[in-house]
Amino acid sequence: MSRPDAGAARPASPRRTGRRPGNPDTREAILNAARKAFAERGYDATPIRAVAAAAGVDPALVHHYFGAKEELFRAAMAIPVDPAELVPRVLAGGPAEVGERLVRTFLTVWDSPAGVAAVALLRSAVSNQWTARLLREFLTTQILRRVVAQLDLDPAEVPLRGALVATQIAGLAMMRYVIHLEPVASASPDTLAATIGPTLQRYLTGPLDAA
Amino acid sequence: MSRPDAGAARPASPRRTGRRPGNPDTREAILNAARKAFAERGYDATPIRAVAAAAGVDPALVHHYFGAKEELFRAAMAIPVDPAELVPRVLAGGPAEVGERLVRTFLTVWDSPAGVAAVALLRSAVSNQWTARLLREFLTTQILRRVVAQLDLDPAEVPLRGALVATQIAGLAMMRYVIHLEPVASASPDTLAATIGPTLQRYLTGPLDAA
Repeated sequence: MSRPDAGAARPASPRRTGRRPGNPDTREAILNAARKAFAERGYDATPIRAVAAAAGVDPALVHHYFGAKEELFRAAMAIPVDPAELVPRVLAGGPAEVGERLVRTFLTVWDSPAGVAAVALLRSAVSNQWTARLLREFLTTQILRRVVAQLDLDPAEVPLRGALVATQIAGLAMMRYVIHLEPVASASPDTLAATIGPTLQRYLTGPLDAA
Repeated sequence: MSRPDAGAARPASPRRTGRRPGNPDTREAILNAARKAFAERGYDATPIRAVAAAAGVDPALVHHYFGAKEELFRAAMAIPVDPAELVPRVLAGGPAEVGERLVRTFLTVWDSPAGVAAVALLRSAVSNQWTARLLREFLTTQILRRVVAQLDLDPAEVPLRGALVATQIAGLAMMRYVIHLEPVASASPDTLAATIGPTLQRYLTGPLDAA
């Protein structure tokens, strides 16, 4: 079953991403360096070359293996979905029902096989300060920043709005997938969109000091 | 420093609770049996005598050490506050601003020294299925049941309303005390009461399918 150099020197086929899997040890060293840097310095303050230096490789190799910095971040956190694809789906159709769509998109991912990895990440973030910092950076820079950037909001309110959305989404994840509190644990997406959607709608676009 | 029989045979003083601390091994055996029974059978389906039988003691001794079943539950979970005292505080003044008062009461407990134990319990519930079951039973039977019982709600809606409240409160706890997502992590009680209070108000007393 040994496959020496599996994939390492294979030319990219049209069905592949175009990035070579590379040497597993080197890949893991880069991912470890990325996790450490993103957790310690934050996503914005971490250039690819700092990750490369910490891993002892050339920056071009990091780009070669993982692509852009946001893709390196996703790989470092083993995030099974691409916010750059999901967030526009939530925002498609304008701000009017963005709360409901956010709930439905969240449930589509977490109810799917990819949700297992998401639950594992949530558990890890609660028990591990480093993962918590990574998750916080991920929420802030990859999800919330994308959502609020397109909603034409007062920039001064954006951080609070984003964090409020995160409280409701994280609590939904906790109760549905970790604590299994009924009836939320087995409620339909329609029920949760109808009940929790308006909350996210208000956090994103409504007045922040009235119901 | 050895204090043989410390407290074991001391008469109760007016400043004490009136319950003797008892033999530490016996107390711990009772608490272990209670945790197991409450997690496996649920709070409602667990009589004190079942806990006593599992611990190999007389039911009277369980009452003697811990009092009523709800006090045994609190002791088993090391819950630092008494829902029987807190919940009426939230409900005092009627249903009109119960959402804001719920946020403020929650923050009073979790921002206090007792909050350390609460955060530890939350962390534990995420990583341990048994603690998760205990926390679920505690939320359902000790907190939510008390809250909704006094709000004159449609009984058919009570479980969903209670669970929705739990999602928002758990997510607030996660982001403020575990993930430390700003600005929620350091927001004032006034800000959180004004922004999250209306959400809890709607989950408790509002229509469940509109903002």
